[in-house]
Amino acid sequence: MDAAMFQTPFIPPGRSPRQVFEWAVDQAIVADQAGLTEYWVGEHATQAWECIPNPELVISAVACQTERIKLAPGAHLLPYHHPASLAMQVAYLTQILEGRYILGIGAGAFPADAALRGMTDLSANHKMVVESLEMMQKIWKGEPFQQTGTYWSAGFPQAEEGHPFRDMLPYGGHVDIGLAGLSPNSPSLKFAGERGYIPLSIFSGDEFLKNHWETYSTAAAANGHTVDRSIHHVVRDVFVGETDAEAKRWAIEGGLGKSWSEYLLPQYKHFGIIDGLIKHPGMSYDAIDLEYLAEHVWLVGSPETVVAKFEEAMESSGGFGTIMAYNHDYIDNPEPWNQSIELLAREVAPKVHLPV
Amino acid sequence: MDAAMFQTPFIPPGRSPRQVFEWAVDQAIVADQAGLTEYWVGEHATQAWECIPNPELVISAVACQTERIKLAPGAHLLPYHHPASLAMQVAYLTQILEGRYILGIGAGAFPADAALRGMTDLSANHKMVVESLEMMQKIWKGEPFQQTGTYWSAGFPQAEEGHPFRDMLPYGGHVDIGLAGLSPNSPSLKFAGERGYIPLSIFSGDEFLKNHWETYSTAAAANGHTVDRSIHHVVRDVFVGETDAEAKRWAIEGGLGKSWSEYLLPQYKHFGIIDGLIKHPGMSYDAIDLEYLAEHVWLVGSPETVVAKFEEAMESSGGFGTIMAYNHDYIDNPEPWNQSIELLAREVAPKVHLPV
Repeated sequence: MDAAMFQTPFIPPGRSPRQVFEWAVDQAIVADQAGLTEYWVGEHATQAWECIPNPELVISAVACQTERIKLAPGAHLLPYHHPASLAMQVAYLTQILEGRYILGIGAGAFPADAALRGMTDLSANHKMVVESLEMMQKIWKGEPFQQTGTYWSAGFPQAEEGHPFRDMLPYGGHVDIGLAGLSPNSPSLKFAGERGYIPLSIFSGDEFLKNHWETYSTAAAANGHTVDRSIHHVVRDVFVGETDAEAKRWAIEGGLGKSWSEYLLPQYKHFGIIDGLIKHPGMSYDAIDLEYLAEHVWLVGSPETVVAKFEEAMESSGGFGTIMAYNHDYIDNPEPWNQSIELLAREVAPKVHLPV
Repeated sequence: MDAAMFQTPFIPPGRSPRQVFEWAVDQAIVADQAGLTEYWVGEHATQAWECIPNPELVISAVACQTERIKLAPGAHLLPYHHPASLAMQVAYLTQILEGRYILGIGAGAFPADAALRGMTDLSANHKMVVESLEMMQKIWKGEPFQQTGTYWSAGFPQAEEGHPFRDMLPYGGHVDIGLAGLSPNSPSLKFAGERGYIPLSIFSGDEFLKNHWETYSTAAAANGHTVDRSIHHVVRDVFVGETDAEAKRWAIEGGLGKSWSEYLLPQYKHFGIIDGLIKHPGMSYDAIDLEYLAEHVWLVGSPETVVAKFEEAMESSGGFGTIMAYNHDYIDNPEPWNQSIELLAREVAPKVHLPV
């Protein structure tokens, strides 16, 4: 199994934008040095907790300070950007990173992000994603075209004779694309399968993971894409410590616990997402506390314990190739958190394998 | 006089995007450490020589590695970005930089940059600039609105009760804006004067500088803005060495000379821009070589020589507050160039003053 990180970010509203940015930058460098394979950065312009409006600013800030890790916006919300400007930016980032780049895309689900762009209705967002991708992929070919679409116009200019453009097209001629899904029969994961993109599952229970892979792989097969479970990315909470007790304490008392108690648990209960995470049917929502989450939902413990929890997760979900660990706010005391990243990369991930 | 730098960039097409990016990043750090006051980064998606499509990627890359220098896109081409997405990006950068930010804006003059966005006609670009600014400035207030404009729609969402947005508005509640002009009676500088923005003159002769200030200050006065010449920025070529001979050699034989011989001189001759730079009326274009430029157009020499040349320039133009030195490709041997930056900041700029 590969281990990666998702910098949503889950950082409390009290932190300044500068603190969030510096933390996101520092964590990418820590993740690279530890050996994580990918670092994804979310995009939201208005959210109180998930508050990096421009993931590419974090990505470019660490481009020259990282060596092996792939960097990814997770996700660029395509309806909210001009496809040509985004296409050139993405291509430039693939060049700067010499290919260490994955383009995460999304349709946008928060009405406030849409309202910023004067959109009061999100019903056309998926169609906008399709048009944006079509235009971006044409631009990445670097061949002259002009297209007037439903939502935008775009093109690639004809160079004047004797004055060629600088080569600003994607590194290696190709951009890897990824797409996340949460709901059962996720339309996003179906779309990812149809296109052969990388599927990401926001974890909400093993049954959903099975359904996600089924949705994705069925769509992929129907469209001639050969895929296996090693491409499946799953986003979960992980904390690895020297001992079970230490890991649990840092998880509950640190930023991870704070994110869940102040933000995620109320949200997950409100939207019913918590149901898929409960391992004891019929349990009341009130009984779900950080202690329960640390035992049954997050993957917390010593390296041995977390390896065992991953092996169980592989069996019960059918398996996945990359764990994307959520990042949390350990700004005031980063050592235990950074150690968790290192243990995940060095002591846990290499020992976990897809079910045979 | 303050000394700043303009990373256009003038870097030959043979360099990779990664090399251009790394050089732009390194030079911002050098400029900050030397004590330059501002570092501007151009935006062009297709040009062979001027080839940074996203200045904010350079700016964010050095945000945490610089301390005092102001960073500025120079310029963001407003017709080619969604105003809301750009407004949030700009606000976020002002926050990351804790105010060390100036927003350079432009209407876009290269047809190829426009064609990328499906635009075959640049005649509406100025109107797009005005609409974009109007929308961005509304967004920066953070008060709910929805506007359907001629070119875009934008708004600021109403937060739900009990769920305030994170404060992502401009640092200090304000964004400094700058605008460059080249032609006589520049409409851009007139617009800058009307709005009280910072005026930048692309240098094409002292007579043009006088005209630029006249154009700018007349428009400023007519609109109630009190301005003085200390706000005037002038973009020129500067090389300072230990001796006149050393400076001249590094200027001519290095990246500065290469930019002019391979790119700028042919362009300046083609468009007649060279006329304003010739100090000997009636001189044939053929006689204008690097030697002539080093003596009469660029500001090249020992600190004492360059101070004297600036004093002459102050007198003959009427004066300006900030010199913006063009950056050039000294990637293979940065020491003489970096020394020039240090000498400009420490030995030249503090000794040059506006005419009394």
